[in-house]
Amino acid sequence: MGYDKLDDLAINSIRLLAVDATFKANSGHPGAPMGMAPVAHVLFNKFMTFNPKNPNWLNRDRFVLSNGHGCLLQYALLHMFGYGISMDDLKAFRQLDSITPGHPEAHDTPGIEVTTGPLGQGFTNAVGLAIAQAHTAAIYNKPGFELSNNYTYVFFGDGCAMEGIASEAASTAGHLQLGNLIAVYDDNHISIDGDIKCAFTEDVTKRFEAYGWHVEWVKDGDSDYEGIEAAIAKCKAVKDKPSMIRLTTTIGFGSLLQGTGGVHGNALKEDDCKQVKKKFGFNPEESFVVPQEVYDSYKKHADEGAAAEKEWDELFEKYSAEHKDLAADLKRRLTGKLPEGWQTKLPVWKPTDKAIATRKTSETVLESIYEAVPELLSGSADLTGSNNTRWKKAVDFQPPNSGIGDYSGRYLRYGVREHAMAGIMNGLSAYGTIIPAGGTFLNFVSYAAGSVRLSALSHQRVIYVATHDSIGLGEDGPTHQPIEVLAHFRALPNMMVWRPADGNETSAAYYVALTNTGTPSILALTRQNLPQLEASTLERAIKGGYVALEDEAAQITLVATGSEVSLCLEAVKYLAEHKSIKARVVSLPCFEVFDSQPKDYKLSVIPDGIPTLSVEVMSTLGWEKYSHEQFGLNRFGASGPYLDVYKKFEFTPEGITKRAVATIEFYKDVKPLRSPLNRAFEQLI
Amino acid sequence: MGYDKLDDLAINSIRLLAVDATFKANSGHPGAPMGMAPVAHVLFNKFMTFNPKNPNWLNRDRFVLSNGHGCLLQYALLHMFGYGISMDDLKAFRQLDSITPGHPEAHDTPGIEVTTGPLGQGFTNAVGLAIAQAHTAAIYNKPGFELSNNYTYVFFGDGCAMEGIASEAASTAGHLQLGNLIAVYDDNHISIDGDIKCAFTEDVTKRFEAYGWHVEWVKDGDSDYEGIEAAIAKCKAVKDKPSMIRLTTTIGFGSLLQGTGGVHGNALKEDDCKQVKKKFGFNPEESFVVPQEVYDSYKKHADEGAAAEKEWDELFEKYSAEHKDLAADLKRRLTGKLPEGWQTKLPVWKPTDKAIATRKTSETVLESIYEAVPELLSGSADLTGSNNTRWKKAVDFQPPNSGIGDYSGRYLRYGVREHAMAGIMNGLSAYGTIIPAGGTFLNFVSYAAGSVRLSALSHQRVIYVATHDSIGLGEDGPTHQPIEVLAHFRALPNMMVWRPADGNETSAAYYVALTNTGTPSILALTRQNLPQLEASTLERAIKGGYVALEDEAAQITLVATGSEVSLCLEAVKYLAEHKSIKARVVSLPCFEVFDSQPKDYKLSVIPDGIPTLSVEVMSTLGWEKYSHEQFGLNRFGASGPYLDVYKKFEFTPEGITKRAVATIEFYKDVKPLRSPLNRAFEQLI
Repeated sequence: MGYDKLDDLAINSIRLLAVDATFKANSGHPGAPMGMAPVAHVLFNKFMTFNPKNPNWLNRDRFVLSNGHGCLLQYALLHMFGYGISMDDLKAFRQLDSITPGHPEAHDTPGIEVTTGPLGQGFTNAVGLAIAQAHTAAIYNKPGFELSNNYTYVFFGDGCAMEGIASEAASTAGHLQLGNLIAVYDDNHISIDGDIKCAFTEDVTKRFEAYGWHVEWVKDGDSDYEGIEAAIAKCKAVKDKPSMIRLTTTIGFGSLLQGTGGVHGNALKEDDCKQVKKKFGFNPEESFVVPQEVYDSYKKHADEGAAAEKEWDELFEKYSAEHKDLAADLKRRLTGKLPEGWQTKLPVWKPTDKAIATRKTSETVLESIYEAVPELLSGSADLTGSNNTRWKKAVDFQPPNSGIGDYSGRYLRYGVREHAMAGIMNGLSAYGTIIPAGGTFLNFVSYAAGSVRLSALSHQRVIYVATHDSIGLGEDGPTHQPIEVLAHFRALPNMMVWRPADGNETSAAYYVALTNTGTPSILALTRQNLPQLEASTLERAIKGGYVALEDEAAQITLVATGSEVSLCLEAVKYLAEHKSIKARVVSLPCFEVFDSQPKDYKLSVIPDGIPTLSVEVMSTLGWEKYSHEQFGLNRFGASGPYLDVYKKFEFTPEGITKRAVATIEFYKDVKPLRSPLNRAFEQLI
Repeated sequence: MGYDKLDDLAINSIRLLAVDATFKANSGHPGAPMGMAPVAHVLFNKFMTFNPKNPNWLNRDRFVLSNGHGCLLQYALLHMFGYGISMDDLKAFRQLDSITPGHPEAHDTPGIEVTTGPLGQGFTNAVGLAIAQAHTAAIYNKPGFELSNNYTYVFFGDGCAMEGIASEAASTAGHLQLGNLIAVYDDNHISIDGDIKCAFTEDVTKRFEAYGWHVEWVKDGDSDYEGIEAAIAKCKAVKDKPSMIRLTTTIGFGSLLQGTGGVHGNALKEDDCKQVKKKFGFNPEESFVVPQEVYDSYKKHADEGAAAEKEWDELFEKYSAEHKDLAADLKRRLTGKLPEGWQTKLPVWKPTDKAIATRKTSETVLESIYEAVPELLSGSADLTGSNNTRWKKAVDFQPPNSGIGDYSGRYLRYGVREHAMAGIMNGLSAYGTIIPAGGTFLNFVSYAAGSVRLSALSHQRVIYVATHDSIGLGEDGPTHQPIEVLAHFRALPNMMVWRPADGNETSAAYYVALTNTGTPSILALTRQNLPQLEASTLERAIKGGYVALEDEAAQITLVATGSEVSLCLEAVKYLAEHKSIKARVVSLPCFEVFDSQPKDYKLSVIPDGIPTLSVEVMSTLGWEKYSHEQFGLNRFGASGPYLDVYKKFEFTPEGITKRAVATIEFYKDVKPLRSPLNRAFEQLI
């Protein structure tokens, strides 16, 4: 307690950096930073422990700005505390290739924990960060060694509060009793459409209480610094519930337009900039000013953080002596590298092994590696028995008093909350000690598209276990049968979409997913049984594509993924018997990984000289990149036993044969007939 | 009130149809129908008015089964009331091409209002149906003529309750004070992962109260028929709030596995089927039995519904005399046809008109046609000023006591709830009197993917106004710049994705979107200004693709959409000046519509003999279908002023020229060089 003019000065410095940077860029959102500067100042200085010189220190308190459009709040703080953001960086706000983009991006800016802006995501990431902390503490903390005890703080506004993903995440956090999570709700009554009375009149406090949260209300978030501090302190004292502080603020505090939508997403006018500076006792003719005493004061807190890290390092050194294996394991996890030799645990299938669904081979992989890869934390959005995501001895991640698990548990029951699952996994991954894998039906990964996109954009090692991957799921019908889903995620940059054809390809998918630290993966897995292929090996499949059946005299290449690879192998026999046509077969379980192979290799797989026909029971969109002609399903599926559905759409040896014959015929006059992999120019990356 | 054995018999008939049909299919979900048969029986017989002989009667009460996996509940009721579902149809449950698919599909089964199964959707559709009723009543009801007064009832389970979309929809319904909406929450404590205590321990009642709902609790939903009836009656009496009945039931009531997850998604074992029949006083050796007295009783209620419709028809006849124009308008709306001559209101731009963003030309279209197309109901997910979705004189759809609109209003403030917006629009469209259009940024249409998919699958005429359609949005950066979004929705069957290049193409997009009654549309619109093209006309653009610049001597075709069309026209000049290369330009605003044109026409647009290069500032996935080579952006964008961002990624006349030259060079030896539109075989549709 005890706030004085230096606090006002610091808070107003934050506000004015937001004013100046948005004015210079003539773009951005000054309103939220001006409204939330007080709580940010109090929180960062009185409660948060962090070391700006090492933004990766494990036990730092985490801060997430879920209303990411207000990123100048965060950029200003990071600058003032001495993170690697200079005043010039602030001046380059929203300019090309700056580290101060329009919304916070974790990958590029020191001190940004997660990428936010799309509303509701940061709130959900914060739930993931808090779960990760609770789990890390449960695994590593030992008597006398509280290695992990950080809090996660998240700011969110009305926009986040309206988003369904945040509702899902809040319900989850309440269920999990995450006492290490404190959310500050910027109750400023303004969203882009103006006063929220036009769309959002629910009782947010009561809703959070319904989720099982502790709630505080600070009625004057603009100037009651003591009240803010007291509220945060009370929330920290509540250990068995997440807490939400309803902070009533004035958006754009100090502006002539304060309290209105006019200050939400537009820079202040020049005269308004001047009057607000005057009002705050700053020189109206100067811009981008932080008084030295503010820097000094912030530096003091930053130094305390550095000292705290040093103390922690010493603690960890002692810990390393007493708990050697755990310490080594933690150190290893933080490098992102998997344990030596883990990959020897990956199961290997023989061609004589029985036909089995890839959702089951995926289960076998998890069962085989979970001990070797302790950072793997699996889960499902209420489809555990269908996604096969749970190893037999898994303990649920649950509040210890639930009687059905504890925080050391490595299996998360996400509930029917696909979007929150994905956003939470992004947070789990961002924490640094966990590799999350989460299951749902492939079709419902679409529910999570907002977060899946951010897995890719923010380079999170997240694994989506997406079963029931096609019309092959059968009876559930078109509402559950993906058609467009693979095309969608294949078009998403930095995402590996795998569709393994058998057990060994499933092992390969996990191998690549787990060893790529900066790229998420979607594993599209069948409900129906698939045979083990002759040619499939881990070594071949990890290239993303390989020859599943070679024939030097082939007149056509059939290229397929997943369940259609074995179908193509059957079609080869049918083609030989009924049409005397020779064909070769390529399995292409992952476009993105195949694309990264050397060109020679790729052309050995899909060669010049003969046409290529792709076969996949879903949208053909995108297959033109790998094939001359495409056999797919550019319509919705049908409800029925899966073999009936396959037959209806002609996904049979006969159906493939018919199209292969047409393809050969169509291309016989084209000279030269190049592989579709030959292109006139390279794509920018 | 007053329930007797006939009620038990009817309820148990429903339960046993679910048991028999899932057993025969060896697939499906008997648990929910067995648990909810009592409330369904009471609701349909004591409260709902409908005529099975005319499932399209406007003023019927609407029923939505949001927990669509329990569809046998609905199929059984529809059968028993005499809708067009025979006992044989029930026996064909989940079989190929039956009208009783695995989840209810509106388009194929009489009496199914909306397509459900993906959780949370039906609940949200119901909010849309209720809004539509309130709006229809506000427009058409006159003193003495209560033409529209139907209720919307929706059943939902724990799965729906956990989904974020349902949270968004519930918050919206509470805000809108939809007294005509009654939701029954099947509080059976079971989801697929078993007891919901593993993931879902919030206070659902309190949450709904926080949204502004009236809540009742029936503690014995299995047998307290009077309590159920009383609760529904109380909810009907609450006119200024939506109501939720928490109905505590036993999933799989009667089964040996009742109350467990074992009866959720699997057919009962044979001995269990027999014991439950015995328990209910049915012959254990018989299947698919409905006692005649049950049919008779249900027929009686159906006849009352037919009589009610007749009475309504008479009322409408009188109404037609007194309110001729309104009556004619309503009749017309129900046919799906737009008013005669409406299209003459579509704005026309001249090449000399100034450059303007297509989000602004879209606004001009709405401003021009809103009076001529009274069924158009616009809105935005809290981006009104950015999406430009609101005509100047629009009245907000708001509760009359809000002081900021009323139920006759044709502008909906959806809040920051993209997914619910889409699901609500599906409900609005399904009601029959409204064509909904809703805005958000293109990138956040992905948040709504679950509902957008159902717009397409269930043939709803819904318009997504998706502005800020590319890296051209500039400063907001990669979190907001779509890369994969168009590929995603182009891969979705029965969806028209439009990316107009100028004003006339925007008019064309609206023309086709509004006149296709069974296909939704996404209109991808720019933030940045675009010039009005020389060649663009409505007549050309409604073909989905046309020649924007012809040159008989062209060595290459440049094909583009939206903002890249004018860029290609610039590139043509650059190519001529700097490389002496002649090029022609094609504008392809809508793949799906272009695909439906005659082949001759298509080949005149993208002809044989010269190579085609596509130019679009996002994922190239799918462009191979229309071009030999693709210039796009297969990576995330960047935050900065948009011209800087375009330049960074070489989307300039020079950048296009470089790739055009490479393309011409690469294909010069290929003979014959066919248009990519020439294919070896036709796709199944």
